[in-house]
Amino acid sequence: MAKDKPTPRPRAETPKGFRDYFGAEVTARKAMLDKIAEVYHRYGFDPLETSAVETVEALGKFLPDVDRPNEGVFGWQDEDADWLALRYDLTAPLARVAAQYRNELPSPYRRYAMGPVWRNEKAGPGRFRQFYQCDADTVGSASVAADAEICAMLSDALEIVGIPRGDYVVKVNNRKVLNGVMEVAGLAGDDKEAERGIVLRAIDKIDRLGDAGVRALLGAGRKDESGDFTKGAGLSDSQIAILMQFVTASKHIERRLEDISKLPGALDSATGVNAYLASFQGSAVGREVLGGDASVNVFWNRVATQYLREIVGESAVGREGVEELESIAALLSAQGYGPDRIVIDPSVVRGLGYYTGPVYEAELTFEILDEKGRKRSFGSVAGGGRYDDLVKRFTGQAVPATGVSIGVDRLLAALAAKGRGASDTAGPVVVTVMDRDRMADYMAMVGELRQAGIRAEVYLGNPKQFGNQLKYADKRQSPIAVIQGGNEAEKGVVILKDLILGAKIAQSATLEEWKDQPAQVEVPRGDLVAAVRKMLGQ
Amino acid sequence: MAKDKPTPRPRAETPKGFRDYFGAEVTARKAMLDKIAEVYHRYGFDPLETSAVETVEALGKFLPDVDRPNEGVFGWQDEDADWLALRYDLTAPLARVAAQYRNELPSPYRRYAMGPVWRNEKAGPGRFRQFYQCDADTVGSASVAADAEICAMLSDALEIVGIPRGDYVVKVNNRKVLNGVMEVAGLAGDDKEAERGIVLRAIDKIDRLGDAGVRALLGAGRKDESGDFTKGAGLSDSQIAILMQFVTASKHIERRLEDISKLPGALDSATGVNAYLASFQGSAVGREVLGGDASVNVFWNRVATQYLREIVGESAVGREGVEELESIAALLSAQGYGPDRIVIDPSVVRGLGYYTGPVYEAELTFEILDEKGRKRSFGSVAGGGRYDDLVKRFTGQAVPATGVSIGVDRLLAALAAKGRGASDTAGPVVVTVMDRDRMADYMAMVGELRQAGIRAEVYLGNPKQFGNQLKYADKRQSPIAVIQGGNEAEKGVVILKDLILGAKIAQSATLEEWKDQPAQVEVPRGDLVAAVRKMLGQ
Repeated sequence: MAKDKPTPRPRAETPKGFRDYFGAEVTARKAMLDKIAEVYHRYGFDPLETSAVETVEALGKFLPDVDRPNEGVFGWQDEDADWLALRYDLTAPLARVAAQYRNELPSPYRRYAMGPVWRNEKAGPGRFRQFYQCDADTVGSASVAADAEICAMLSDALEIVGIPRGDYVVKVNNRKVLNGVMEVAGLAGDDKEAERGIVLRAIDKIDRLGDAGVRALLGAGRKDESGDFTKGAGLSDSQIAILMQFVTASKHIERRLEDISKLPGALDSATGVNAYLASFQGSAVGREVLGGDASVNVFWNRVATQYLREIVGESAVGREGVEELESIAALLSAQGYGPDRIVIDPSVVRGLGYYTGPVYEAELTFEILDEKGRKRSFGSVAGGGRYDDLVKRFTGQAVPATGVSIGVDRLLAALAAKGRGASDTAGPVVVTVMDRDRMADYMAMVGELRQAGIRAEVYLGNPKQFGNQLKYADKRQSPIAVIQGGNEAEKGVVILKDLILGAKIAQSATLEEWKDQPAQVEVPRGDLVAAVRKMLGQ
Repeated sequence: MAKDKPTPRPRAETPKGFRDYFGAEVTARKAMLDKIAEVYHRYGFDPLETSAVETVEALGKFLPDVDRPNEGVFGWQDEDADWLALRYDLTAPLARVAAQYRNELPSPYRRYAMGPVWRNEKAGPGRFRQFYQCDADTVGSASVAADAEICAMLSDALEIVGIPRGDYVVKVNNRKVLNGVMEVAGLAGDDKEAERGIVLRAIDKIDRLGDAGVRALLGAGRKDESGDFTKGAGLSDSQIAILMQFVTASKHIERRLEDISKLPGALDSATGVNAYLASFQGSAVGREVLGGDASVNVFWNRVATQYLREIVGESAVGREGVEELESIAALLSAQGYGPDRIVIDPSVVRGLGYYTGPVYEAELTFEILDEKGRKRSFGSVAGGGRYDDLVKRFTGQAVPATGVSIGVDRLLAALAAKGRGASDTAGPVVVTVMDRDRMADYMAMVGELRQAGIRAEVYLGNPKQFGNQLKYADKRQSPIAVIQGGNEAEKGVVILKDLILGAKIAQSATLEEWKDQPAQVEVPRGDLVAAVRKMLGQ
């Protein structure tokens, strides 16, 4: 083996767009995934773990927001000239598995999967090229009961990780409703696929662009602040008007609910609301204010489906979509999931091209401060929907499927922003080394502590400077330092230093108090474990 | 967007050398990792999760058994022309992290990491291109106490996952001993690096090649059964004789122990053994058989270090190695880890070139049947050692480090082979669908069960054929089917079918017994949860 020429040292750097996770960051995510898995398991979902690597052929071209195949993935050519790539989500591998094992798997097949996915995209603040997803999908059920179940499960999952009811909402919509509206606007048919794509992407940007922006993209096009022009769908004013009925649906529904809330006395009875809804168009409404938010909310789903029914008109697919939404709301309500947790919301369309029916999204409704100190609502942490065509790619046979993906890292960030993050940062008891030659004694101490289930370490650095050992204990957030010098060893005792109490005293004690060293006790060597337990409050 | 030409359907296949893990396979591995993490945590190790992707520059050329850089990894070129690759182990990323965050991390830094690694190698039966590792390392401690600690922790980890004491042994050796023997054989110095490499690889193959095979590789070379010739190190007979003293060390130690076991009366006192050891060379030994295996075993470490001291002769590095082994044995013994769990064993050298001091390996000692039904001992499931130069690559400064890697998949296979694998395959209670229009009722039932913490599902396939629903419940290993047809609904009851009892009865019942349907009960709808609980034995 010839000796290498001296080469410059390698850089110790994570690749651009990737990051490392330390200690409590790892623990917090794991705790969250464990809790979510508990919910998924209770709902009958089984775990599936596919490998990180798939053939590009199997992954297909379904990467969100990307039109060209293989763009946005990390891929390479195998020695057999096959192209392989890292998975960009957990749905594409599921579709592959559902096709590959279709004769062995139960049908319907409920599975969950958790793990990292990779995107070869520009990284930014809080946006990395590897991140975790946590998915649950039901493959092989055409019933909207499957969609309803996933919405209920998503709601349970959010609550179990620490998002209280009221701080989140699961929004449900149906692509068929939008397809119905497009049909009404004359955008049905294979030759209108491009226009429908533009419409879908435009609507998905409503939060960022506002009504006017979407309207522009539906028409001639839109010039953004930088002056760049995005070509629009080129629709006529009447087509745009029809689509805008859908885009602005939430506002219309809200206005109707406001009207209902002002109806004298009618709100508590379903009959009253039904009468109102039946007679809605053009009817005069009372002005008197009635119930508060909660009571109004109960009627949201009914008002929303009524409104959507009006705007899909005679479209068969549109009506089917509205009926499915009504079924979902009824099935959820039967399990006690009312609109305080899960609501029909036409503003949810989900950017992904592959959704074919119900789509859903979980939004956190509390406000946080952004980087610039401005209040904003936290927004979406999970989303999904029905995608009946993904398995068909492989088998030629349509297999109905629906599922959700929880953005674990965003959810962790949300909990941290609310100060509800896990904080298991309990450091170990540190056994210090006063006498290098008696390392076996210190190892015996740490061994006893560990046997007793107490997290403990012996100091393994250079023991010369005792101050360094205490600094180390501090950095490790250690609750107790155990000390035994030659004198103590002779007397058969050890000293325990309560580092938590010590830190408190250091902040406030007078010199006299300090000298008393109340945070320090001497105990017989034989009582080590018991004394440490006591100091830890165990 | 132009329409694509019709393309052939993609194949639904995992890439070659990769596999999928389903249900209990995922659960069992997770349970094992959780238990090992519990031990690592108790020892004061903190979790670290690096990304799957590293720069090739940072990974370096340390891939085991491979001389050329980047061989054996999955790599690709970034858009900035940087080469990236999937990590092939968890040690290389740790070295990068230790260098990158050297000012922030505590020192010594104890960390553990668990996750998949990837190797672009030929896959075979039970050998995949993605597999799990579960590592613990201490960076920044030159003390052999760090090595001893890892050996103790490895022992605890094996026991916590279900390998009982006596079914495994952690073997410890020291590269410095081998280096000392090489020095004695005249193989020191930079110009002998190639020979030393051949010697190391030859010794690492002792299990497969036997003494004669290793001897041949140390000399002119070896022709294997296929007729292929491997060039040897070309050493002289006297050099080979010296090295073979090391290679066959275990046999010598065993013989000496056998002799000791025959010493009259001396075995129980350390003095007796010491006298024996001191007078060993050429001394006559008594023939009377004394203590059994256990008492002999106690002296193994002492006999082994004595033997090694003899064969390293005057070599300074060799003597240092022996002294380190003695220290490790003493430190472990102080914590109660005797040679029944951790032994000094010169046969362990570990193939990796980067080890610089103590090396260790955990071996399962029980026998299993291989594919051909032959008994063989299960072998190694974990290994590691001291590698003081990995961080130096980045910083130029030597940073002492030591650590272990547990082969999780092999360990799972071992437990499965012993019938000790986790078996949490409890399927969900299945609520069947007798009447499609009353889906909301069934959803309400399943909702109640889930709220009560019971794993439950409603059947979401096409409900037409009731037989399919029961077949589904069977495939799901469901313990109970809940049934409510129109009659039951009118009466306000549900039927619970005990599928476990039912399966038992089906095997043995007479027709009369069968007709009684003892595995089936009718309960009031309101008692659903309580009755299911009772049937589940909760």
